[in-house]
Amino acid sequence: MPKLLECALNLSEGRRESVISTIVEVAQGVRVLDVSSDADHNRTVLTFVGSPAAVAEAAFRITAQATELIDMKQHHGAHPRMGAVDVIPFVPLDEATMEEAIAVARQVGQRLGEELGIPVYLYEEAATQPARRNLADVRQGEYEGLARKLADPAWKPDFGPPRPHPTAGATAVGARVFLVAYNVNLGTSDMDVARTVARALRARTGGLRHVKALAVKLAERQQVQVSMNVVDPFQTPLYRVLEMVKMEAARYGAPVVGSEIVGLVPLAVLLETTRYYLQLEGFRADQVLETRLWSGEQ
Amino acid sequence: MPKLLECALNLSEGRRESVISTIVEVAQGVRVLDVSSDADHNRTVLTFVGSPAAVAEAAFRITAQATELIDMKQHHGAHPRMGAVDVIPFVPLDEATMEEAIAVARQVGQRLGEELGIPVYLYEEAATQPARRNLADVRQGEYEGLARKLADPAWKPDFGPPRPHPTAGATAVGARVFLVAYNVNLGTSDMDVARTVARALRARTGGLRHVKALAVKLAERQQVQVSMNVVDPFQTPLYRVLEMVKMEAARYGAPVVGSEIVGLVPLAVLLETTRYYLQLEGFRADQVLETRLWSGEQ
Repeated sequence: MPKLLECALNLSEGRRESVISTIVEVAQGVRVLDVSSDADHNRTVLTFVGSPAAVAEAAFRITAQATELIDMKQHHGAHPRMGAVDVIPFVPLDEATMEEAIAVARQVGQRLGEELGIPVYLYEEAATQPARRNLADVRQGEYEGLARKLADPAWKPDFGPPRPHPTAGATAVGARVFLVAYNVNLGTSDMDVARTVARALRARTGGLRHVKALAVKLAERQQVQVSMNVVDPFQTPLYRVLEMVKMEAARYGAPVVGSEIVGLVPLAVLLETTRYYLQLEGFRADQVLETRLWSGEQ
Repeated sequence: MPKLLECALNLSEGRRESVISTIVEVAQGVRVLDVSSDADHNRTVLTFVGSPAAVAEAAFRITAQATELIDMKQHHGAHPRMGAVDVIPFVPLDEATMEEAIAVARQVGQRLGEELGIPVYLYEEAATQPARRNLADVRQGEYEGLARKLADPAWKPDFGPPRPHPTAGATAVGARVFLVAYNVNLGTSDMDVARTVARALRARTGGLRHVKALAVKLAERQQVQVSMNVVDPFQTPLYRVLEMVKMEAARYGAPVVGSEIVGLVPLAVLLETTRYYLQLEGFRADQVLETRLWSGEQ
């Protein structure tokens, strides 16, 4: 398979459709997989895929366009943000490596700083300091607190000037693995059970290394849900997550009644689950018929 | 996804490499997935994929070429056979339907009969009579018995003359679903257990509708294997096969210690297994990232 990067660029505009479509049109040479706007958040997630060079160029052009059409001084929304293009994460797919995603993050960050005058923080795998790995820490203070943050020597940006861009604020550019949103429904209406199981699964409270979890009430179904982000589904596979939910919920007599994958999931993540349950020996991804049909190989 | 057919054409030549490669070269406009030759069987399976029209044209041209390079009067091998191109099965993939595979089988059969003078039997889903569905029945008597078989009014060919082609014999052309070769290893060296479990699984002896099964000794591992062909893995999914092997073997205290998928498996077959074990609600194939990357859609 070819080297591909995914980019799930977060725009601080979720209401003005003409602005959003004008910005999306700039994404040339890549495949746009999804455009999801939220009016309450006043935010759009634009997901596209392509070669590292094409994804880097598209991310740069989108940011240049957004800088002209979005004025952060006018922006209000429920979601934390600090820039017109708020976050640009690059995700390695197929044979692309994390090193390549990091290289693209740095290259795009540098261009944003030098050519557009936008201060840039590198985050997650692309971070230059441990304190900048976590996006929530980087964005702390939001757009309104940017001038002070950028002036702090500890928060000198990785690229660009140490002051906010007049309209575009600042941008976080990073690299991370593909995350999977995975929810498990329990056959009880008792939220205490969901909270206890979520706590048992969550990395922060002693659970699985790459799981973020919270309890959700499914009022219509009279069920509760353990709603999770598996932030590295290659290291913490879905079967392990499900079986641990089953194990913890069984303690309270609550059965697993269903689960759901929200959005996209890489084939490799599903194959690992299949290998576990079927106890498969030596099963390779290229045994999946479709990988032969769609690959570039002859 | 586009409409695609797979063709796993069986050639009666597994020894002379130059003959095989000359024949394979004729396959233009399709993607050749695999060429597997067996010298003992003196036979080659040539697997290719493409649009219905491209696969039909390639199958015709390969047969025309094989008719010139293979002389069935000189052919000997361990595998039953009746023609230079012995079997041409068409398998619907993606959005192609069985009806389209059957239509291609009939069209290719007709051209083989009219343009090349080869007697053709339609088999499996393309069969015109129930007695011709099973390939083993169609091929009964092999090349050496062809002249007599074709002269029998009950075995008048579907296309072509009622006498063998001088060099190419006769060809079976059919349509069938994708089959999966699936083996389950048991933690015992007792062949009686494997035979009993194989009998319990096999459709012919009361097992699962689309399973063919036999017992195999894995001498080096001191294990036994239930070796299966799941001839319609869409109707009889792999999880049902595995769980039934577990259930039957447990009766004799033998655990399942592993399984293997031999060769290719369609993504849809794996997804059904994932849906079962993860108890997934409403999971669609287009949630697999790669289906978006490789599909023609934007």
